[in-house]
Amino acid sequence: MPVTIDELVNYVAGRALDTVVDSRDRHDPVVKLASPAELQQLFAQAAPLDLKADDVPDNAALIAAVDLVIDRSVHTRHPRFFNQNFAGADPVAIVGDWLAASLNTTLATYEMAPVFTLMENAVLSRLAELVGYRSATNSANQLESPAGVMCPGGSTANMMALQLARHRKRPDSIRTGTGGERLTIFTSASGHYSTSKAAAVLGLGTEAVVKVPDGPDGSMDAVALRNAVEASKAAGQVPFAIVATAGTTVTGAFDDLDALADVAEEFDLWLHVDACFGGAALFSPRIHHLLDGVDRTDSFVWNPHKMMGLTQQCTLFVVSEPERLDACFSSKADYLFQPDKLNAELDSGDRTFLCARRVDALKIWLTWKARGDSGFTERTNHALDLADYTRAAIANSDGRFVVVAPGPYVNVVFRWLPPVLRNTTSSIDDLSPQLRQALHDVAPGIKARMQTEGTAMVGYQPIHGLNAFRLLFMNPEVTTDDVDETLRLIDAYGEHEWADR
Amino acid sequence: MPVTIDELVNYVAGRALDTVVDSRDRHDPVVKLASPAELQQLFAQAAPLDLKADDVPDNAALIAAVDLVIDRSVHTRHPRFFNQNFAGADPVAIVGDWLAASLNTTLATYEMAPVFTLMENAVLSRLAELVGYRSATNSANQLESPAGVMCPGGSTANMMALQLARHRKRPDSIRTGTGGERLTIFTSASGHYSTSKAAAVLGLGTEAVVKVPDGPDGSMDAVALRNAVEASKAAGQVPFAIVATAGTTVTGAFDDLDALADVAEEFDLWLHVDACFGGAALFSPRIHHLLDGVDRTDSFVWNPHKMMGLTQQCTLFVVSEPERLDACFSSKADYLFQPDKLNAELDSGDRTFLCARRVDALKIWLTWKARGDSGFTERTNHALDLADYTRAAIANSDGRFVVVAPGPYVNVVFRWLPPVLRNTTSSIDDLSPQLRQALHDVAPGIKARMQTEGTAMVGYQPIHGLNAFRLLFMNPEVTTDDVDETLRLIDAYGEHEWADR
Repeated sequence: MPVTIDELVNYVAGRALDTVVDSRDRHDPVVKLASPAELQQLFAQAAPLDLKADDVPDNAALIAAVDLVIDRSVHTRHPRFFNQNFAGADPVAIVGDWLAASLNTTLATYEMAPVFTLMENAVLSRLAELVGYRSATNSANQLESPAGVMCPGGSTANMMALQLARHRKRPDSIRTGTGGERLTIFTSASGHYSTSKAAAVLGLGTEAVVKVPDGPDGSMDAVALRNAVEASKAAGQVPFAIVATAGTTVTGAFDDLDALADVAEEFDLWLHVDACFGGAALFSPRIHHLLDGVDRTDSFVWNPHKMMGLTQQCTLFVVSEPERLDACFSSKADYLFQPDKLNAELDSGDRTFLCARRVDALKIWLTWKARGDSGFTERTNHALDLADYTRAAIANSDGRFVVVAPGPYVNVVFRWLPPVLRNTTSSIDDLSPQLRQALHDVAPGIKARMQTEGTAMVGYQPIHGLNAFRLLFMNPEVTTDDVDETLRLIDAYGEHEWADR
Repeated sequence: MPVTIDELVNYVAGRALDTVVDSRDRHDPVVKLASPAELQQLFAQAAPLDLKADDVPDNAALIAAVDLVIDRSVHTRHPRFFNQNFAGADPVAIVGDWLAASLNTTLATYEMAPVFTLMENAVLSRLAELVGYRSATNSANQLESPAGVMCPGGSTANMMALQLARHRKRPDSIRTGTGGERLTIFTSASGHYSTSKAAAVLGLGTEAVVKVPDGPDGSMDAVALRNAVEASKAAGQVPFAIVATAGTTVTGAFDDLDALADVAEEFDLWLHVDACFGGAALFSPRIHHLLDGVDRTDSFVWNPHKMMGLTQQCTLFVVSEPERLDACFSSKADYLFQPDKLNAELDSGDRTFLCARRVDALKIWLTWKARGDSGFTERTNHALDLADYTRAAIANSDGRFVVVAPGPYVNVVFRWLPPVLRNTTSSIDDLSPQLRQALHDVAPGIKARMQTEGTAMVGYQPIHGLNAFRLLFMNPEVTTDDVDETLRLIDAYGEHEWADR
């Protein structure tokens, strides 16, 4: 009997729910690795990945394909998944996301999203309050000027921040363009690459971004920043924005916002905080001081889809002068933002360069309500505890592991060392080129073995030109046993990898 | 007994599924209108919309809030919902979206999204094939240079297209910025506002956008375009891009792509097609000719979340020279796009200015497979049939209604006329200022009555300065009875509204 569309729909819904409700058993693989060719082959036996004219497989084949999707995807809720700065999606967030998909509307006008408009304003308002912006006084009850806008990712928010900054420095540029002026942006060497990408898109060019050297802890050196701004001015350029980072991607460093705010004030620069990753510090008294000075900044972006387990994407962008969003981005398109309709003053869509936006507001509102600030605190502190535990385990590893970048946050960046390099007094900088290359290559080798067996997933990247692993904590299901087992696995793969070369 | 988080999760999932499976009864309201203050009050009795410190309502209160969300949202799957250029989400798309949310990963690297990377490439490849780009030869089996990239909305794609265009004209601008050159963009007067918004963000300024006059059918006048390009050059500017529209937002007009391609070739301009709305013409032999010449263009964006009932957002952006995506946007961040990891050559994330992207690929892959090209054809033709039916009904309405902009697509733009203006030979342009204002105001009045009763939702906007309604068809559940009833309602509300003034 053929499978109907309704049966297909119910099957997919059922599998989606299973995936949410059942935490993954630790013995299940985090991923069943397959090459593109292998996946092509597997799907060919269900429904081929390629799409062709007149290609309508029966629904039973699609059910088999859906099984393959689940079987062959990375299980980011698995407690041995440490690969990205997101993990362990909260079931409340997932079903909040589902309900938004079912109701399928857009965040652009109050008319189309009455409840979600108020929810968006409520979460933005609460974030602005935590940050300390005056826009926080606009609660969802006083909607004249919402505190910011949600957008589909941190890169988009960082670009919006830079556009606001340009608008403050040169209001006419919205109409007339930047012209020949060399506007410059300052961010730390460890800041996210989206600043450079944004500078290219903004027509300023990647060379408009001055990468200020890091201090020893990986955060921006405020003295070097001040020097760089002065040098830029001396060169006839027009400094207009600083992108500070709260929680760098690799080491979790936090820029000193108070020191940066001093420079921003002295030179009249927009100070944007990319707290996509580190915004969780707002909720943890243990690390809240890392954000000291945040109330002196001009804009702030936080991705609860990172530390807080919201589903992709969930980005809250708040601004100290939120009226500027309208001034900078609005175009008053009359087919959408009709001024003569009911409640038109609440339309959110003209406060961005986007048009329709997916409703990401429901899931964060529901999750924040269900967990509370206290739940966010607990989740953050649990992650901090695990990072501390891991650093201690590494300190007691008899030299098998060495922490590369001690950070204040949930990132533990370390290398596995082969026996020959353990407990020596010589620096890694003194290694022979051959040994250095071997040490660099061992991380991808370990990672490949880990992926092939599916036992865990941990990322790596070069630190000072030499690969190092990065364990990131945020999933509340992760235990110290998971840390122990993951370190044991890396050590065992390392031994094999080193022996094989 | 307190409600547990698991019970909350299951409750929300259940309500989300009900919303998908049960088509809305025609007697249910499309929307239960409420002002912000009313919504605040309703939620205060469940869980207040505002977020506060130490605010963790019990889960029973959250269940009541979820009920309110559903009760007070706009039901876009209702067969009397005609308000936007999306409606009637396909249940297959919705559950595909859910599964992506459950698995919660990002489209950026093959490592994190092996299946979804291939699915993204497969749908982009199929679209490129339908458009006629050479990039179509890159099937998901030959992945060296995927045909494009998915992104969170048409505005983002339009901006990416313009950045690619600038890159082709001035490759160094990515590094050095635009400088003092006056680069200009050409789009039709009826083109989407995102072109102007993009020009502002790109640092070119809104004045860089030349709005080319429409011809009588609302599409760009190619002769006027050619004149505008020449005038821009004569003024010392540097024309670099045309944004063509396939399916304008208001009247559904299609620019003549062949004529525009001639101009683009003559002046070496990038020709981008904003087919977010009109891309469905690829699937309907009845209107496929509206896209004649599309294979001669440089880039093309289609939003299946409009005509095809995908959930928000679902945007496919394809490029005739897809290698340029890398050249234009890549930054090779080493923490994410490690060249020494497995299958790194398949990473998609560096082909945009974004970083992580939500997995929108699964839902479109699953829906396209389940429905086939033929299902998309059927859906499009059903909408065209309804539009034809509506135009005929208006022609037979004894002058109650008058079509304002006859279009070739699924938009029916019309006015309701009071008895005094029916079947007269005088033009609307000859109305007294008072009568003209009254006619302008009657549409918002009708709309407000419709929203208050929740009987239907239809948009309106000014056409030549005078409000007109816009019925948009795409939901396969809509019948000719729904059209009749909606026209009847508008007429009845119009009579009341006219009488009350």
